[in-house]
Amino acid sequence: MVESVFMAELTWPEFADKVKEGVIVFLPLGTTEQHGPHMAMNVDVVLPTGVCERVARAVGGIVAPTIPYGYKSQPRSGGGEGFPGTTSLDANTFSLVVRDIIRSLGTDGVRKVVVVNGHFENCWPSVEGVDLAMRELRRDGVTDMKVMRLEYWDFVGRDTLDQLFPDGFPGTELEHASLLETSLMLLLRPDLVDMDKVPDDGPAKFPTYDLYPVPDGFGPASGVLARAQGSSAEKGRLLMDDHVERIASAVRAEFGV
Amino acid sequence: MVESVFMAELTWPEFADKVKEGVIVFLPLGTTEQHGPHMAMNVDVVLPTGVCERVARAVGGIVAPTIPYGYKSQPRSGGGEGFPGTTSLDANTFSLVVRDIIRSLGTDGVRKVVVVNGHFENCWPSVEGVDLAMRELRRDGVTDMKVMRLEYWDFVGRDTLDQLFPDGFPGTELEHASLLETSLMLLLRPDLVDMDKVPDDGPAKFPTYDLYPVPDGFGPASGVLARAQGSSAEKGRLLMDDHVERIASAVRAEFGV
Amino acid sequence: MVESVFMAELTWPEFADKVKEGVIVFLPLGTTEQHGPHMAMNVDVVLPTGVCERVARAVGGIVAPTIPYGYKSQPRSGGGEGFPGTTSLDANTFSLVVRDIIRSLGTDGVRKVVVVNGHFENCWPSVEGVDLAMRELRRDGVTDMKVMRLEYWDFVGRDTLDQLFPDGFPGTELEHASLLETSLMLLLRPDLVDMDKVPDDGPAKFPTYDLYPVPDGFGPASGVLARAQGSSAEKGRLLMDDHVERIASAVRAEFGV
Amino acid sequence: MVESVFMAELTWPEFADKVKEGVIVFLPLGTTEQHGPHMAMNVDVVLPTGVCERVARAVGGIVAPTIPYGYKSQPRSGGGEGFPGTTSLDANTFSLVVRDIIRSLGTDGVRKVVVVNGHFENCWPSVEGVDLAMRELRRDGVTDMKVMRLEYWDFVGRDTLDQLFPDGFPGTELEHASLLETSLMLLLRPDLVDMDKVPDDGPAKFPTYDLYPVPDGFGPASGVLARAQGSSAEKGRLLMDDHVERIASAVRAEFGV
Amino acid sequence: MVESVFMAELTWPEFADKVKEGVIVFLPLGTTEQHGPHMAMNVDVVLPTGVCERVARAVGGIVAPTIPYGYKSQPRSGGGEGFPGTTSLDANTFSLVVRDIIRSLGTDGVRKVVVVNGHFENCWPSVEGVDLAMRELRRDGVTDMKVMRLEYWDFVGRDTLDQLFPDGFPGTELEHASLLETSLMLLLRPDLVDMDKVPDDGPAKFPTYDLYPVPDGFGPASGVLARAQGSSAEKGRLLMDDHVERIASAVRAEFGV
Amino acid sequence: MVESVFMAELTWPEFADKVKEGVIVFLPLGTTEQHGPHMAMNVDVVLPTGVCERVARAVGGIVAPTIPYGYKSQPRSGGGEGFPGTTSLDANTFSLVVRDIIRSLGTDGVRKVVVVNGHFENCWPSVEGVDLAMRELRRDGVTDMKVMRLEYWDFVGRDTLDQLFPDGFPGTELEHASLLETSLMLLLRPDLVDMDKVPDDGPAKFPTYDLYPVPDGFGPASGVLARAQGSSAEKGRLLMDDHVERIASAVRAEFGV
Repeated sequence: MVESVFMAELTWPEFADKVKEGVIVFLPLGTTEQHGPHMAMNVDVVLPTGVCERVARAVGGIVAPTIPYGYKSQPRSGGGEGFPGTTSLDANTFSLVVRDIIRSLGTDGVRKVVVVNGHFENCWPSVEGVDLAMRELRRDGVTDMKVMRLEYWDFVGRDTLDQLFPDGFPGTELEHASLLETSLMLLLRPDLVDMDKVPDDGPAKFPTYDLYPVPDGFGPASGVLARAQGSSAEKGRLLMDDHVERIASAVRAEFGV
Repeated sequence: MVESVFMAELTWPEFADKVKEGVIVFLPLGTTEQHGPHMAMNVDVVLPTGVCERVARAVGGIVAPTIPYGYKSQPRSGGGEGFPGTTSLDANTFSLVVRDIIRSLGTDGVRKVVVVNGHFENCWPSVEGVDLAMRELRRDGVTDMKVMRLEYWDFVGRDTLDQLFPDGFPGTELEHASLLETSLMLLLRPDLVDMDKVPDDGPAKFPTYDLYPVPDGFGPASGVLARAQGSSAEKGRLLMDDHVERIASAVRAEFGV
Repeated sequence: MVESVFMAELTWPEFADKVKEGVIVFLPLGTTEQHGPHMAMNVDVVLPTGVCERVARAVGGIVAPTIPYGYKSQPRSGGGEGFPGTTSLDANTFSLVVRDIIRSLGTDGVRKVVVVNGHFENCWPSVEGVDLAMRELRRDGVTDMKVMRLEYWDFVGRDTLDQLFPDGFPGTELEHASLLETSLMLLLRPDLVDMDKVPDDGPAKFPTYDLYPVPDGFGPASGVLARAQGSSAEKGRLLMDDHVERIASAVRAEFGV
Repeated sequence: MVESVFMAELTWPEFADKVKEGVIVFLPLGTTEQHGPHMAMNVDVVLPTGVCERVARAVGGIVAPTIPYGYKSQPRSGGGEGFPGTTSLDANTFSLVVRDIIRSLGTDGVRKVVVVNGHFENCWPSVEGVDLAMRELRRDGVTDMKVMRLEYWDFVGRDTLDQLFPDGFPGTELEHASLLETSLMLLLRPDLVDMDKVPDDGPAKFPTYDLYPVPDGFGPASGVLARAQGSSAEKGRLLMDDHVERIASAVRAEFGV
Repeated sequence: MVESVFMAELTWPEFADKVKEGVIVFLPLGTTEQHGPHMAMNVDVVLPTGVCERVARAVGGIVAPTIPYGYKSQPRSGGGEGFPGTTSLDANTFSLVVRDIIRSLGTDGVRKVVVVNGHFENCWPSVEGVDLAMRELRRDGVTDMKVMRLEYWDFVGRDTLDQLFPDGFPGTELEHASLLETSLMLLLRPDLVDMDKVPDDGPAKFPTYDLYPVPDGFGPASGVLARAQGSSAEKGRLLMDDHVERIASAVRAEFGV
Repeated sequence: MVESVFMAELTWPEFADKVKEGVIVFLPLGTTEQHGPHMAMNVDVVLPTGVCERVARAVGGIVAPTIPYGYKSQPRSGGGEGFPGTTSLDANTFSLVVRDIIRSLGTDGVRKVVVVNGHFENCWPSVEGVDLAMRELRRDGVTDMKVMRLEYWDFVGRDTLDQLFPDGFPGTELEHASLLETSLMLLLRPDLVDMDKVPDDGPAKFPTYDLYPVPDGFGPASGVLARAQGSSAEKGRLLMDDHVERIASAVRAEFGV
C-alpha cells in the first residue's frame, strides 16, 4: 500500500501505531462555497487540505479528512448564502461536527490535534466546537489533549504581503475568491481556475454592518469581493511556502516535535 | 476549466445553470472507519463516491461532496467505535448535517436529490436527516423537492451474488471489509488495498443482541467481519456494473430522466 | 399488595430491595402504529411487554413501563407516517427518552438493563439512546452498568420459521402486521384482532430505496406489508416460546443469573 | 373486536373514521415515581388514565396512550429524584415528547386534544410541549388545532374538599401519595395499595425554597408528603365523580360537544 | 471606585478576592413583560434585583446581573405572550441560560449561589437550569457547589398578607401587576408607576385549564390579573421588609453566614 | 411616568403605540467579563447600552434590555474564561437567546431591529441568532422584518483613531479593556474606573493561533490586552460622538427615518 500522509488512507493498525507514537493529527475545515465565476466551489477544501498535507509532511503528522461543508457564508466575507452552490451548515451543526470528530480522535488516544481552518466563517463555530470537545474529553477523563486552532492565511509574512500587494493589502475578509485564493488554486489545482473569467466588479464596498435579509446588490454580483487579476501560480507558491513554513514552525514550537 | 461531474469542481454560474435545467444532485454518505488490516479507512468514502460518479455520468447529474464522517460504527456491522481510527458523529449531529445540506440545496433551487449511503450505520440517521430537511423545506414553501435515499449495495443482482458467493451470501451486515468492499476497492483504489494482509479470523459469529459496554472479543480482532479472501478487481467490476446500472435505472424511473 | 413482575406495580421500598439484590430491569420499546385493518394499533406495545413479562418471570427480573410512542414509522417497514393513528417521535426525541430512562435507572443503582425492542424503526434510535446513557453514566462515575439491547423477533429458531413459513420466510421488515405479529396478538390479546378483516392486498413489493415525499400507492393500502392469513394463537405460542426461551437463555448467559 | 375508548385499541381505519367525525383525543401525562411505602409507583399513570377513560366515555372521545415517564420529581412536591424507582426525563426531553405526539396527531387530522396531567412536575414542561406543537403545526399550515391542558386534581368542588379534609386542605403540592391519591387508587387499583404500610412521618414541613443538592432529611423518609390515613375507596369515588363531571363539563363547553 | 454589592461593578481582582472568601452570589431572574397600563414592563427585573441588593447587603453577598428575558408569559399567571412588549425565551433556552451562568460561576470557584426568581413562569425552567448546572459541575469535578432557589414573594408573613388583604389574599398567580407588585414598584421606582392608569377590569376569572390558542377575552384586557387599587409605597415597604428579612434569615441558616 | 427611551420602562400600551408607528428597536448585546484591574466587569453592558440610548434618542427609537451574559471570552480577544468573574454562555445558548428575543419582537409587530454588539466574541453567535430568527419569522409568515447588526466600535472615523492613537491603532481585538473602552467608561461611568490601577503588562503579544487548554501566561496577567494609559473622558466623548453620529446615520439610511 501507499505511504500516505492522509489518515483515511492508512489501515487502522497503521493509524494505531502512529497514535502510540504521539502523532499530530491535522483537521482541515473547509466548505462548499462560490468562489467567483473563475474558480470551482471547492477552494476552501483544496487549500487547507493542501496546506495540511505539506505541514504534516514537514512535521511528521497525518491529515484527517477535510470537513467539506462549513458554516454559512456571510455577505461581507464570502458573498453569502444567496449564491447558488454555497452549501452550508447551521452554526450549531458545524460546532457539533468539530466536537464529535475531536472527541472521537481523543477517545482513540490522539493527544495532539491541529485544526486548520480554510473558510473564514468557520472560525467561530470551530472555536466553539473545540471548546465543547475539550469539555467532554475532560469529563471522559482525558486531560492531556492539546489542540491548536488556526486560520492558515494568518501565517504569512509582511514581506510576502507587500510583494503581492504593492498598493496595500485589502484585508483578509475581502480576500474571498481574490488574489490570494486564486494564486493558491493556480498552484494546486490550475484545472479548476479559468483566469479568463476573472470578473471586474470588485472590490466590494461594504458598510460596517450586516443587513437581514440581504439587500440586492449588497456585494459584487460576481462573488469576488476584492480582485483576482494578477493571480499566478508563482504568487501561490510564495504564499504556500509562507503558510507551510510558518505553521510548521508554530506546530514544532507548541508540540515539541 | 475541467468538465466535471463533481459539483464542487464547478463554478457557481455553472452550477446555477445546471440547477435551472433541473439537475439531479447525488449526495454520497461515507465515514472514516476501520476496514481491516488490509484496507485504508476511507473505503466508505471511496465506494459511494465512485458509484455516484458513474451514476451521475450515466444520467447527467452531479455529485455533491461526500460526507466523510458518519454515524458511529456498531460492533455487529462495522466493528464498533473501539477500533482506532474509526472517527464518527453522534446520530443527532449526523442527521443535522444531512438536514442542513439538503435544505441548503433546496434553497438553491435543487429539486432532485439522490442520497447514496456507503456506510451501513448511516442508514437510519440519514433517514431522519432527509425527513427533517423535507419538513423544513415545506415550511419554507418548497413543496416540490423530491429525494431518493438508498444503500448502494442493495442494487445488485441475484446472479451477481451467486457468482461471487457460490457457497451463499453471508448478508449485508457481515460484509464489512469483506469480499464485496475489498473487490470494489481493488477496482477503484488498488493502491489502498494490501491483499497480503487479509486476515483470517472471520467470519464473525455475533449473537442477536448488542452489549454495552462492548465485551472484549465480541467480534474478530482484525475488524473484518466476514472474509476478504478471493477478492479481485474483476469481482469489483461485476459489482460496480450492477450498482451503477441498477441505480441509474431506478433514478431514471423515478425522476423521469 | 400483588406480587408483580412490573416495576411500576412495586412500591419504592420493594424496588429498592430488588435493586440491592442486583435485579435485571427489562425496558420494552413500543410505539403506537397502524397494524392493518384487523389489529389494534398497540401491537408494538403488547408484544414486547408480553415477551418481557415472561422473560422477567423466567430469570427473576422486573419490567419497566413500556415506551408507548416510538420512532417514526417508515414506508418500507411499517407503512409510514401517512397512516392515521401512527403517532411517533423524532429520532432525537426518542433517543433522549431512552437515554434519560437508562440514566435514571443507573442513578438508582440498577446495573443490569435489557432493552427489548418491539418496533422495527426503534432499532437505531435506541442504539443511540443506550450509547448516550452509557456515556453520561460513565461521566457520573457509574462504570459498571451493563446493557443488553435486542429486537425480540430475532430470537426465533430456524425450525420455527420453517414450520410457520413452509414457502419461505419473507424477512423481518415485511413482517409488519403480518403472520408473526398477528399470531402473537391472537395469543396475547385476541380481543384486539379481527381475522375477518385481514386484507389481501399484500405482500408489498418495495423497491430498494426510499422516496420523499412518499408517493401514493408506495405500499399496500391496508398497511399489512406481507400476509396475515393463516395466523393463529398456536403459531403465536410457538413463536412466544421461542422468544422467551432464547432471550432468557441469552440473558442468563450474559448476566450470569 | 372490542369497542374501546382507548385509541391504541382501535384499528387505524376505526381511528381514521373517528378523526373524520372530529373526535376529541385525551392525552394523559403520567410518570413512574415513588408514592410512599403503601402504593405502587404507577399512581400517576393509573389516575390520569382512569380519569381520561371516564371523561372520554362521557363526551365521546378517545384516550391516547399515557406517557409513562414524566419530568423529574422535585423534593417539595414529589419527594425528588433521590427515591429509588422514580424514573424521569429531563424537561427538554419531556417537552419534545409532548410536542411530537401532538404534532403527530395534528398531522393525522385530529383538531381537538385534551392534555390531562397526572404528575405535578409535568405541568410546566407540558405547557412548553403544547406551545411548541402549536407553533410547529401553524408552520405546517394547521391553524385550527385546539388544545386544552389541565391538571385533573384542579377539578374538584369546595364541598368535596371540605368533606374530605374537615380540618382544612393542605394544598395540592403536599398531596403527593397522600389522602387524595391513595383514595383514588383504592377506587381504581386496590390491589396496588397496602393501607397497613401507610407511614406516619408526615406531613412534610418544607421551607419556601429549593436546595441543591437535596440535603438529607429534607422531606419525610417515607415519600408521603402529607398524610394518607383515612383514605378510602368511597372518598376516591367522591373525588373521581368530581373530576370526571367537571372535566367533562369543561370539555363540552370548550369543544361544543 | 465605588464599593458595590453588584458583581458586575467589581473589578475581576475584587471579585476573585470575594470568591476566595466564599462569597454568596445572588442571581436574580426577571423578564420583560407587560404589567398593566400603569406600570413599566421591567417590574420583574426591578423587584428581584431590589430584593437581592438588600439581602446581599444584609448577608455580605454580591448580586450577579439580572437575567432580563425570562420564560414565556402564561395567560393565567402573566397575561400571556399576546400582550405587546412581553418578550420571552423558550423554556429550553431559558434553562440553558441558567445552566451556563451557574456552571460559569462554579468554574470560577463560587460555591454558594442563591437564585432569586421574580417572574412566576421562570420557576420551573429555572429548576431545570439549576439541575443541569449541578449535573455538569459534578461531571467537571465540582462536588461542593450549593444552590438555593426561591421565589421572593413566598417570603412574606401571614400577618403582612392579612394587613395588605383584609378581605383575603387572592393568591400568588393572580397577583400579576396587582397590589403587591405595584406597591413594591411604588417603593423602588415610583417614576415607573402611574396610579391614575390603574385599570378596573379585574380580577381575572380563569378556568382551571389552559387553552391553545388563547381565546379572545381569556383574561382582563388590561393585563392586570387581580387589582392594583390601594397600592402604596408603605405597603411596598412592609412587603420588602418581609422579603429581605426572611430571605436573609433563610440564607444565613442554610449557608451558615 | 417618565418619558423613556428604554423599552422596559414603557407600559405595554405605550410600547404597542410605538410599534404601530413603526418604531426601531435597538437590542444591545453585552456580557459580564473581566476588563482589567482598573474597570468593573460591566463594561460590555454599559457601553453598548450607552451607545444605543443616544442613537435611539437621535432617530426616535427605543432600547430593549441589554443581554448581560454573552458568548465565552477568548484569550486573544478578551482574556478568556480563565479570569474570575467572566461569566458566559455557550454559543448555542447565546444564539438561541438572540433568536428568541427577535422572534418575540417580530411576533409583537416590530419590523425594524438594530442589534448593537458590545462584546467582541458575541459577533458570530449573534449573526447565527439573527439568521435563525429571520428563518423562524419567515415560517411564521413574517416576511417584512428587517434587521441591522453591527459592532459599535466599527463606527469611528479614521481621523478620530489617528487623534487617539498617534502611534498607530493596535486593532480592534487587542483593544480589550484598553484606551478606547477605558475612555468611554470614563465618560459614562467614571465611578467604575480607577485609573490608578491601570496595569502596565501589555500590550499582549499573541501568536496567530489558539491553544486549548490555554497555557499559563498566554496573555497579560492583568487582562488588559493593549494599553489603557492616557485614557480620558474627553477621548471617550470623541469616540462616543463618532459612534452615535455614524450609527444614527446608517440607521437613517437603511430604515428611511
